[in-house]
Amino acid sequence: MSSYQRKTPIKSDCSIEKTLLVISGKWKPAILSELLKRSVRLKDIQEGLPEASKRALTQQLKEMVEDGLIQKKDFNQFPKKTEYSMTPLGSKLSSVFNILTEFGDRL
Amino acid sequence: MSSYQRKTPIKSDCSIEKTLLVISGKWKPAILSELLKRSVRLKDIQEGLPEASKRALTQQLKEMVEDGLIQKKDFNQFPKKTEYSMTPLGSKLSSVFNILTEFGDRL
Repeated sequence: MSSYQRKTPIKSDCSIEKTLLVISGKWKPAILSELLKRSVRLKDIQEGLPEASKRALTQQLKEMVEDGLIQKKDFNQFPKKTEYSMTPLGSKLSSVFNILTEFGDRL
Repeated sequence: MSSYQRKTPIKSDCSIEKTLLVISGKWKPAILSELLKRSVRLKDIQEGLPEASKRALTQQLKEMVEDGLIQKKDFNQFPKKTEYSMTPLGSKLSSVFNILTEFGDRL
């Protein structure tokens, strides 16, 4: 058997790990799954994940905005309304999540 | 907008998270990517990932054996030879990794 060839695997691993990194927060899969279906407000997410603190949720949302997966829209109204939705990049997570679900169902 | 409906997303998230859980060790994507190509011995993995300690690698291999992704075969010879390879379940990670790579390439 030939020895482990580093070049190709490490290169592809980087992309795998980059994806894992951006979707692997404690509440990220739950939030992203919901956003793949519709735009939501923070309070909707809080209602769906009552065990998560507001601080944790806003932190994870912030990270996903920074990673370009989701976007935040502030509506110019009172009371203040802020909505989160997928970016075009984030929408591509749909196929990622489908295949992760399919595999996870076998575990 | 209707409020967050918990039932469906949490259910699918569980499968997503189960998959993330079994593939998200520090060296797991690198090891699994290699095993998707061929069976390897511990020393091959060590050569390919010199920055990983033998202890860390054997721990991650052990976890992946327990999770049913890979299998360990001991050859009855001297010097002792042990080879790791994918199980049929683990082989199905091929499509998971392809799509994680494809998405990661966009990040």
